[in-house]
Amino acid sequence: MKFVIDRDHLVNAVNEVTRAISARTTIPILTGIKIDVNDEGVTLTGSDSDISIEAFIPLIEQDEVIVEVESFGGIVLQSKYFGDIVRRLPDKNVEIEVTTNNQTTIRSGQAFFTLNGLDVLEYPKLPEVSEGKQIRIPIHVLKNIIRQTVFAVSTIEVRPVLTGVNWIIKNGTLTAVATDSHRLALREIPIEAPEEEEYNIVIPGKSLSELNKILDEASDSLEIILANNQILFKLKDLLFYSRLLEGSYPDTSRLIPAETKSELIINAKAFLQAIDRASLLARENRNNVIKLSTLENGQVEVSSNSPEIGNVSEKLFSQSFTGEDLQISFNGKYMMDALRAFEGDDIQISFSGTMRPFVLRPRDAENPNEILQLITPVRTY
Amino acid sequence: MKFVIDRDHLVNAVNEVTRAISARTTIPILTGIKIDVNDEGVTLTGSDSDISIEAFIPLIEQDEVIVEVESFGGIVLQSKYFGDIVRRLPDKNVEIEVTTNNQTTIRSGQAFFTLNGLDVLEYPKLPEVSEGKQIRIPIHVLKNIIRQTVFAVSTIEVRPVLTGVNWIIKNGTLTAVATDSHRLALREIPIEAPEEEEYNIVIPGKSLSELNKILDEASDSLEIILANNQILFKLKDLLFYSRLLEGSYPDTSRLIPAETKSELIINAKAFLQAIDRASLLARENRNNVIKLSTLENGQVEVSSNSPEIGNVSEKLFSQSFTGEDLQISFNGKYMMDALRAFEGDDIQISFSGTMRPFVLRPRDAENPNEILQLITPVRTY
Repeated sequence: MKFVIDRDHLVNAVNEVTRAISARTTIPILTGIKIDVNDEGVTLTGSDSDISIEAFIPLIEQDEVIVEVESFGGIVLQSKYFGDIVRRLPDKNVEIEVTTNNQTTIRSGQAFFTLNGLDVLEYPKLPEVSEGKQIRIPIHVLKNIIRQTVFAVSTIEVRPVLTGVNWIIKNGTLTAVATDSHRLALREIPIEAPEEEEYNIVIPGKSLSELNKILDEASDSLEIILANNQILFKLKDLLFYSRLLEGSYPDTSRLIPAETKSELIINAKAFLQAIDRASLLARENRNNVIKLSTLENGQVEVSSNSPEIGNVSEKLFSQSFTGEDLQISFNGKYMMDALRAFEGDDIQISFSGTMRPFVLRPRDAENPNEILQLITPVRTY
Repeated sequence: MKFVIDRDHLVNAVNEVTRAISARTTIPILTGIKIDVNDEGVTLTGSDSDISIEAFIPLIEQDEVIVEVESFGGIVLQSKYFGDIVRRLPDKNVEIEVTTNNQTTIRSGQAFFTLNGLDVLEYPKLPEVSEGKQIRIPIHVLKNIIRQTVFAVSTIEVRPVLTGVNWIIKNGTLTAVATDSHRLALREIPIEAPEEEEYNIVIPGKSLSELNKILDEASDSLEIILANNQILFKLKDLLFYSRLLEGSYPDTSRLIPAETKSELIINAKAFLQAIDRASLLARENRNNVIKLSTLENGQVEVSSNSPEIGNVSEKLFSQSFTGEDLQISFNGKYMMDALRAFEGDDIQISFSGTMRPFVLRPRDAENPNEILQLITPVRTY
């Protein structure tokens, strides 16, 4: 294997695939970056066996030569050293060559490195998913879906399936839902998919968070392929694989209260700022408890009390409050996470009693499941 | 105590004094910020007993009212909570009032906080240094002196005096020197000070690093006052106190070799980048060992070898090399620290043998002590 490559293209690809690599892997070769060279270009791969990222660098891009290949082949190089080296190389071009015993030389300007590589044949095979079912989705929509649901997954592995986001595709609609059993985040949107097929999958929350970091809002749309307990997100020159979680996701629709006893319409941004301030003292409590009380004339009060430190209260004008008066306590962090999903718009909060879960939705939403955030109150003594 | 204050001025002052506060203090009240209000304005104080910072906010600044005082007094508030609160207050103005039992209310817009404060009389007294000897120094000069010496202080406390930077002021010259006994950094400049007086003090390295972060390159000059084992740096509306280290600093002048066997002139920036690359593989060794070898035609080679990972070498053209050929090994981090002191200019490195300390100076320096960096080589087997 021997080739000369444009340093900046190499650095970008290394940075992308490194996101999948974990220093704590139990499979030593996965701390490396796999490099494959063939007559089409150079492919880099990073993986922690849950997530795998493949970045492709073509020979020519926009009439400019990016890679000149002298001989084909492959090698695995320690990502920690290889990444630091390519980022600091002095010249625009880099020559990489595998000599004997997987020794690899990296040459740029007057700098000359030799790294001990690992046999490319020992690197685990990536799953085959190219034959699966396909969906196409605009990238800004996918980023929103991830952002509005993924924070609500469970972080404890007692019920592994709850550490993922459940995607149900049915009748041209994608429903994404995440819950840690104390709160729930749900997002529903129309989607380009064959009407006759139904999918019900659970994607690890960590995979979606990493994918969201890689996705560039500016790009157009991506293709999603489903097969063999794997999901593949296909971008130009970048493949992002994630395994799917096994086990059936609970039916969450029965958790959402049907009746409403009181309803608050308020601006999400103003409410978020007040909750943020109230949380400054609440955070020392185990549950980060914030109290919401209705006052007269549509005013509400947000308050919190930590006997050792002090207390805080703030009055806010809502757009409207209707129904039974209310005093309810909840986890301030859960409320802030939920409010951020609405991007500062006016929202409607439906309460069905002090000890029953309450639901946040956009004001005047046509589809009640367009964005839905549910929070279970905290009992205070 | 009761006053109304402009939030942005309060936030700035809180940020400044918080730099002196350590969560790991053994004196609980020092985790707080002291607030004093009198007829001139508001003074905030933070301290970890080694460093103390006092920020003053006047009643009026540039014809604008900053503080309106209703009653005098003082209080100590937990810096962790007070800082987070003032940074998030909703309104331009903040009202702070001490009620009974050191309870303190903070009001801004509709937000209303109560914090449990501590009695201001229990806060330790700051040292009295206003009567000491005075020096005046431009701020950009002081920042350079700190930056070019402080990295070389010892980080282990076996010889506490070596954790500080030794300042000697004599005949209108300031000499700052730091050493951890493996390397030494020295800076000498003319200074405005009374000719007849001599000072020899040791300032803790940590104090100088913190001071450097606060100093704003844009400002003009500051006054330094020395007294009672304390040093006070006096800026407009900001006082920075540090205790001085006790014990006499070793005479380091005899460490600097008088004879030179070979001399290398090279650009500090190009050399630094090559050392940085060579350190990428060297860092795994305990001593971060880099080897420098002279070649023909004024070329030098920088190299490093870590059997398990790989090796690296790079050839550089120097401006000139004269004297005995050389193969010398040194700690790459020490070399990078030293090279950064020269800001990319050409430097002259004087060697007096493979196992003798070598010295870096600016090329064609008039005063051999203007900037001097000394490094002891590493023995390689």
